[in-house]
Amino acid sequence: MIDRLLEIVGPKGIITDATDMHPYLTDWRERKHGNAICVVLPASTEEVSAVMKLATEMQQPVFPLGGNTGLCYGAVPESGNPEKPGIVLCLRRMNRIREIDVVSDIVTVDAGIILAEVHQAADKVERQFPMHLGSEGSAQIGGLISTNAGGTAVVRYGPMRDLVAGLEVVLADGRIIRDLAALRKDNTGYMLRQLFIGAEGTLGIITGAALKMFPKQSNSAHAWIDVASPADAVKLLASFRSTAGQFIEAFELVSASQYELVKRHIDRVRIPFAALPEWSLMVELSTSDVHTDLDAMMGGVLEAGLEAGLVRDAVVATSQQQAEEIWHVRHSVSEANKKEGIGVVHDVAVRTSFVPDFIAAADKLSAERFPQATTQVVCHLGDGNVHYILMFSHEYWASVADKDAFALEVERAVHDVGARFNGTFSAEHGVGRKLPEELVRLGDPLRYELMKQVKLVFDPENRMNPGVLLGK
Amino acid sequence: MIDRLLEIVGPKGIITDATDMHPYLTDWRERKHGNAICVVLPASTEEVSAVMKLATEMQQPVFPLGGNTGLCYGAVPESGNPEKPGIVLCLRRMNRIREIDVVSDIVTVDAGIILAEVHQAADKVERQFPMHLGSEGSAQIGGLISTNAGGTAVVRYGPMRDLVAGLEVVLADGRIIRDLAALRKDNTGYMLRQLFIGAEGTLGIITGAALKMFPKQSNSAHAWIDVASPADAVKLLASFRSTAGQFIEAFELVSASQYELVKRHIDRVRIPFAALPEWSLMVELSTSDVHTDLDAMMGGVLEAGLEAGLVRDAVVATSQQQAEEIWHVRHSVSEANKKEGIGVVHDVAVRTSFVPDFIAAADKLSAERFPQATTQVVCHLGDGNVHYILMFSHEYWASVADKDAFALEVERAVHDVGARFNGTFSAEHGVGRKLPEELVRLGDPLRYELMKQVKLVFDPENRMNPGVLLGK
Repeated sequence: MIDRLLEIVGPKGIITDATDMHPYLTDWRERKHGNAICVVLPASTEEVSAVMKLATEMQQPVFPLGGNTGLCYGAVPESGNPEKPGIVLCLRRMNRIREIDVVSDIVTVDAGIILAEVHQAADKVERQFPMHLGSEGSAQIGGLISTNAGGTAVVRYGPMRDLVAGLEVVLADGRIIRDLAALRKDNTGYMLRQLFIGAEGTLGIITGAALKMFPKQSNSAHAWIDVASPADAVKLLASFRSTAGQFIEAFELVSASQYELVKRHIDRVRIPFAALPEWSLMVELSTSDVHTDLDAMMGGVLEAGLEAGLVRDAVVATSQQQAEEIWHVRHSVSEANKKEGIGVVHDVAVRTSFVPDFIAAADKLSAERFPQATTQVVCHLGDGNVHYILMFSHEYWASVADKDAFALEVERAVHDVGARFNGTFSAEHGVGRKLPEELVRLGDPLRYELMKQVKLVFDPENRMNPGVLLGK
Repeated sequence: MIDRLLEIVGPKGIITDATDMHPYLTDWRERKHGNAICVVLPASTEEVSAVMKLATEMQQPVFPLGGNTGLCYGAVPESGNPEKPGIVLCLRRMNRIREIDVVSDIVTVDAGIILAEVHQAADKVERQFPMHLGSEGSAQIGGLISTNAGGTAVVRYGPMRDLVAGLEVVLADGRIIRDLAALRKDNTGYMLRQLFIGAEGTLGIITGAALKMFPKQSNSAHAWIDVASPADAVKLLASFRSTAGQFIEAFELVSASQYELVKRHIDRVRIPFAALPEWSLMVELSTSDVHTDLDAMMGGVLEAGLEAGLVRDAVVATSQQQAEEIWHVRHSVSEANKKEGIGVVHDVAVRTSFVPDFIAAADKLSAERFPQATTQVVCHLGDGNVHYILMFSHEYWASVADKDAFALEVERAVHDVGARFNGTFSAEHGVGRKLPEELVRLGDPLRYELMKQVKLVFDPENRMNPGVLLGK
């Protein structure tokens, strides 16, 4: 097979050495290791198509890999069949901007391009591509689309699903769907494109994408607000939506228990309150219009909030530096938690209106069943997405015999709480190889049945990222 | 079958009298007539499910009908099999607001509710549901979702596809998908919901929907701008997007030939220019923030446009009345055209950047092949959606022997021009029973093949609105 692949992609397009292959076979946190015949790096859509045809002929599975920044092991190759280990397909050599259409606000790219490069390309034409997440320096567009990535700007622009205007996809058998016209309106049948977004590589290989660009934001206001409870935060969100709805760029809710950890472990953190707020609401408003007085808008909502008893105290940034200081605290959460202990992190989403009840119920569960843990809440409140964290000390964790089983016990318990509020166990991280059993356990059986049938339409032999999403 | 249906829906839920059935079997323009055993009006999702199970047992097709406002005969029942004429299913008795969640900005409704009632419900809680089209007083949400309706606010809020947060769907065999949790984020597999949106009733019966609400706009600015060409209009759009991008609520381009007809046939039309602009650009900016000076923003773009030679003249409304007068002209187009003659209207969309070339090419085609016609352009420029119209006098039309064949000849010729610019022949009106052959002729064969296979997953016996979209 390797000789045949060499004919298609040339010597630059294939990796067979075990050491060189290692980073392509292992998730970035080095928690899960896979196996494959080789890593293939095609340089064009036609090469991808030829590789897929060869894989079909050889009956080998194909494991697509983007920037390898996932959290659910969706990019770790694991065929489950020693005779057919399959190949890893990585598009990092396909990393061009194909076209920028400023008038139509569309940038068309190869799927292997890194998110940060798309940011730069849009910036050069006075536009923005509004997806921002921690891994933007290494995550590739193809992977971000396949996982329907989220990030901090979802509250305003939606997840990747809302940012894609067109796709080019190579199917399991090598046929190519060219859907890059990027029309704002097209009512000629079923929206197949949306099936590939969030399919985690199980329906086809995304080789190109047309992405929506947006006006650049040149004006912003930032506040750190002290609120008494998630319920008050939710009321304040409704108030912000009424008067400043279209300007909300970020709306994050964080528990005092979380910021205690940031204070403890991170240098140069400035808390602009005498005592840490019990609940911190961090709000950014922004707009492309330089004349809009966002500080006044922010002040108006906060004053009304003070009068209504929803706001206990608030700090509005008066300089770019102050704004950066506020967000530095928020962005230090992961680093602080890594230093504190072992965090079992959840990715539940419920409707925003259910967030307070979900947090209360999760707190009750944790106190009763896992009293060894402290709990932290980091919540994208505008999206109803709660990263509920149970933090165990290194000491305690060392004493747990079967760590995987214990983590699973914690996760299932919290997912069950989410399900009570019609929530999902995976808001933005995906299913991957980590959560297929939760999908069976908690998902709608009818939807699951239909998903399996849709899978058969696109990949009847189950050779596209087998084991991911739908399990074995 | 009628007795069995009576058991399910009761006497209020069934119509069998030929006269009473007539409006349910005929499109609203009375151009196409269908046939069915009876009209069924279920009062609940469970009744819909029971009806579908019965239809499965009896092997009868089912023709869903919303408010009957479509333009492509997608709601005219026509089984093609005299022994199995099928039943019409209309949900107008299912017309409740099920729930309003202001905090999460979600309104959940029965599919039979009329769009204008959703507007009112949102308005009552200080929000808006931003879909606006001519038929909003009679179009039902289920039909609007099934046809992925557009309207005048697409430039800002997107088509129905972007406004749906959840669906309840009854499948052909009566199974019910309950997907109304309306989460902003959920990455647990394939986005099946998007398949039903725009499927024109061929995959299942939409019985309920969770819709996104938005902040109310309480501040707006309106301008009628005289531009020399579509190319200048496009440049001006780019300029508006750079400085006022997030405030654009409407961006319409209309040819002088079109407004001549409005002047000729409509009373109380005020043209605020000495002579009709060759091309009229009609722009609305709006926001929920009362302090934003939209007039200044509009003025800024127009001044820069004047300096750059893109704007020849412009009128900015200084009162609500003036604004209404401007939009009255735009909204009088259909009425004027009806009085003028027989208009063959197209619903092409291309990327906005291709709009000028498309219009030029369509003009060339019309002049060469259909010199009897005058041509009018009504364009949702922000969406790249061009309603290109060839207008024939009543006299000429009377002389055409085979009117259907002639109209088809015109349509195909204009669709071919659209296809040269990677455009679609149906931007917002859909395919229905009118354009399935165009879908075969102009669509991607691979996409068509996949659509047929997806259809088989949801409706293996082809009993859901057979003949619509995918043809016989």
